[in-house]
Amino acid sequence: MNALGSNVPLKVDREQLQRDFDALAALTEPGRPWTRRSFTPIFLKGRDYLAQRFAEAGLTTHIDAAGNLVGRWAGSNSGAPVLMTGSHSDTVPSGGRFDGIAGILAGLAAIRALRLAGYQPEHSIDLVDFLAEEPSEWGLSCIGSRGMVGALNGEHFAMIGPDGERLDTAIIRMGGVPDGIANSVRSDVGAFVEIHIEQGPVLEAEDIPLGIVSGIAGIARVRLRLEGEAGHAGTVPMAMRADAGMAMARLMLSLRDTARAEANKSRGHFTATIGVVRLEPNGANVVPGAAEAIVDVRAENNAAMDDYLMAIDMLALQAATAEGCRVAAAERLSRTFAVACDIRLQKLIGEAAEVHGLATRPLASGAGHDAAFVARIAPAAMIFVPSKGGISHAPEEWTDTEAIARAADVLALTLSTLDQRPLAPAA
Amino acid sequence: MNALGSNVPLKVDREQLQRDFDALAALTEPGRPWTRRSFTPIFLKGRDYLAQRFAEAGLTTHIDAAGNLVGRWAGSNSGAPVLMTGSHSDTVPSGGRFDGIAGILAGLAAIRALRLAGYQPEHSIDLVDFLAEEPSEWGLSCIGSRGMVGALNGEHFAMIGPDGERLDTAIIRMGGVPDGIANSVRSDVGAFVEIHIEQGPVLEAEDIPLGIVSGIAGIARVRLRLEGEAGHAGTVPMAMRADAGMAMARLMLSLRDTARAEANKSRGHFTATIGVVRLEPNGANVVPGAAEAIVDVRAENNAAMDDYLMAIDMLALQAATAEGCRVAAAERLSRTFAVACDIRLQKLIGEAAEVHGLATRPLASGAGHDAAFVARIAPAAMIFVPSKGGISHAPEEWTDTEAIARAADVLALTLSTLDQRPLAPAA
Repeated sequence: MNALGSNVPLKVDREQLQRDFDALAALTEPGRPWTRRSFTPIFLKGRDYLAQRFAEAGLTTHIDAAGNLVGRWAGSNSGAPVLMTGSHSDTVPSGGRFDGIAGILAGLAAIRALRLAGYQPEHSIDLVDFLAEEPSEWGLSCIGSRGMVGALNGEHFAMIGPDGERLDTAIIRMGGVPDGIANSVRSDVGAFVEIHIEQGPVLEAEDIPLGIVSGIAGIARVRLRLEGEAGHAGTVPMAMRADAGMAMARLMLSLRDTARAEANKSRGHFTATIGVVRLEPNGANVVPGAAEAIVDVRAENNAAMDDYLMAIDMLALQAATAEGCRVAAAERLSRTFAVACDIRLQKLIGEAAEVHGLATRPLASGAGHDAAFVARIAPAAMIFVPSKGGISHAPEEWTDTEAIARAADVLALTLSTLDQRPLAPAA
Repeated sequence: MNALGSNVPLKVDREQLQRDFDALAALTEPGRPWTRRSFTPIFLKGRDYLAQRFAEAGLTTHIDAAGNLVGRWAGSNSGAPVLMTGSHSDTVPSGGRFDGIAGILAGLAAIRALRLAGYQPEHSIDLVDFLAEEPSEWGLSCIGSRGMVGALNGEHFAMIGPDGERLDTAIIRMGGVPDGIANSVRSDVGAFVEIHIEQGPVLEAEDIPLGIVSGIAGIARVRLRLEGEAGHAGTVPMAMRADAGMAMARLMLSLRDTARAEANKSRGHFTATIGVVRLEPNGANVVPGAAEAIVDVRAENNAAMDDYLMAIDMLALQAATAEGCRVAAAERLSRTFAVACDIRLQKLIGEAAEVHGLATRPLASGAGHDAAFVARIAPAAMIFVPSKGGISHAPEEWTDTEAIARAADVLALTLSTLDQRPLAPAA
């Protein structure tokens, strides 16, 4: 039985969803698809488009204190907890055709379908475009969701971005009210469900249309600096070198091998990545005197993260020593803890998928998401849709509209079910 | 017996030499010691200083067609082959307190000492400041010595430097005459001896004051590009990656191990260096989709170079394959062949050192030098002096004035011996 008492489950309008994707894809930095960096004019154009569509769908729309665009479908019981969905409309450079915007447009499609079917919720439903989920030019990500849950403070406000602009000034430019953020932390949210592309290859490889996210990995970043002795490439004999580049090459491989071993331990999703490497002075005719790298570690299990962070120090020492070099820095730049998604919501989503005849599998999120912050104030869950080739944060990122529409179908049913049958108290 | 028939060997003036070093050290880009990049205003100031000192020392000074500053001590027999010494006054960024300038000031000191002692050569002696020995902003090194020996052509002239300036225009700006270079290739040089800092650690480690260069290594540069699959650092499982950074780390280590094995084969000086590495996109949260590196190979033995260049292709393929990646490029950017120094000149320098009571050892030059080009038109040799800690192309580069003065003493005796007893025909 669907939300309206029919046995035919409600489906969202695929053509309208496609039109929204096409319109948003056109709102990109010229010559650099698909790019809407947070705080830029093109980002605001994207938001204008969304705000118009929100209004057309009958939502009451405003910018909250933290700069989030919020569209509300008012429920008949204004005192009931709010049901929330959404994601973000900002992008990394060149990689935002689906990442983020899929969750907003799917939420919009679900609400449209419910309204079109004549549904009237008891609980208000908020559709949110969170401000600046991707790492912004201010060096901070998830700015809007942090603000919504009280995790944005004066230290963040003082961060400096392009042209020396402070973050709080930039939030004001987006329509937010930094001074009001502390007093408007949301405590009225009953449940949050975010649809997002997987950004990985698992669903496609297993041909499963929907992933129900079990948890969002904790993320740590460690900066490593190894130092040896710079020297002339032609004149320092091979046997007399302390080549920091070679020490870093050793370390990269041992960090990866250790991460592989951890990933095979069945302690949940685990990755470690060395995506940034810099040699000094980085000249073709100079033996590198120093090498820096950033290690990105993601773990669904916080103990696995602890173990790995300890191992990094030892592996760095071993690699440096083997090459006559030294560890000049092994500095933890940041760490967030893993967030488990709400078990009750996972179950509800699974049941809704079953009604739609869609297979699902549990899946950890290796990427950070606004849902990880919203989970601080409300039960939260995520639905993943397949990413072609697992490609993410690149122009080639792709998910079929039909795949997103299916998730929106499941979301519509999940929202109406939650509206009619609120979550049982957590175990 | 010295040049003038005395048993006390002639010594150069240490204090005057020190004053010259101090004066040249002061002629640097402000705030960036010790920098006189070729073709810049500060480079020309350095040349003005040198031209004045050349003139004071009684040399007739001019800029030749290729932009070299040449000071001539005219011999009594204008038809006799010219004896030549010198080096270069341009520098790499920040690393030119001794590199290059030592050979000019030592040559000047030797000539002053001979003149002061009343010596009158039969052969003219040319002291040369070769233009732009270090890699210039035009992407070319040894511009002046190339020009002097007929190795500068129209393709070089068309190279584009800062502000779009052509190289031939820049040479004109230095006082050269590009149109005249082809017709003024030197064929009158009887011998060339260049003093240079070792730029490596061997002489200091063995506590030997002078190195007699056996040969100048050939240099090859190879650009390597490995490609895998870029992916999100958090979402692509460890087991599903094709990480181009890991493939490059493997390759770096195998290239080094193979170079070490070659260096131990007693086929002469051999080095391979990976000084430049670049990951793409070089983001902390992205599995590298591509990795590039430049391999710098130096070999005194051309067959050893051939073998290694062939091995690079195989090692790249092995490393890429082991990581599920592919070799997208293994492109030879440049190659010069090794140059053997003249055996007769090496012997003569050794005898002159013995007169001065100075120990010597044969030593290959892993660095390129103007002498490698001059060797195309005349017997050429080099004398190396110790570099503290083997440091080169860095502000910390250091050689004691006394060490350079000793080499100048040996040069004075070598020049006067060559003047009185020209080289026997080559075997």
